[in-house]
Amino acid sequence: MYLAKVYVTLKPTVNDPQGLTIKGALQTLGFSSVEAVRAGKYLEIRVNESNLDTAKDQIQEMCRKLLANPVIENYRFEMEKA
Amino acid sequence: MYLAKVYVTLKPTVNDPQGLTIKGALQTLGFSSVEAVRAGKYLEIRVNESNLDTAKDQIQEMCRKLLANPVIENYRFEMEKA
Repeated sequence: MYLAKVYVTLKPTVNDPQGLTIKGALQTLGFSSVEAVRAGKYLEIRVNESNLDTAKDQIQEMCRKLLANPVIENYRFEMEKA
Repeated sequence: MYLAKVYVTLKPTVNDPQGLTIKGALQTLGFSSVEAVRAGKYLEIRVNESNLDTAKDQIQEMCRKLLANPVIENYRFEMEKA
């Protein structure tokens, strides 16, 4: 059993309206030192798989097929024994 | 200048319809080893602040006031020199 922590972020050149909105809200709240905010997704996936390499391959495949849009997003993940 | 990486996750007892939907979609795609998926938010915040402790306090305050809903969400963050 492994727990994968998957981080999906927008590529640096892609516009991020959600991040801009959060930045604006933080500045309105008085956090004037905020320079930039980028918003992304964080997923924890538990896979019932005893082999680490197989589990990694599966998570890689999941990111490629469903979790991230390769045109505008990057992803990375960490595996943890669970 | 510091870069904060903020992770906002639903508390373990809170229902996560987004995670359930992703789990269903992954299983439909043939990933039968998926046991559970929890969805969260990932934010990268760049603050123009030279003192690490001040920057940490500010991020903590931002999480408390805007980024996380303390009733249903947990948050954690890491600081990085940027």
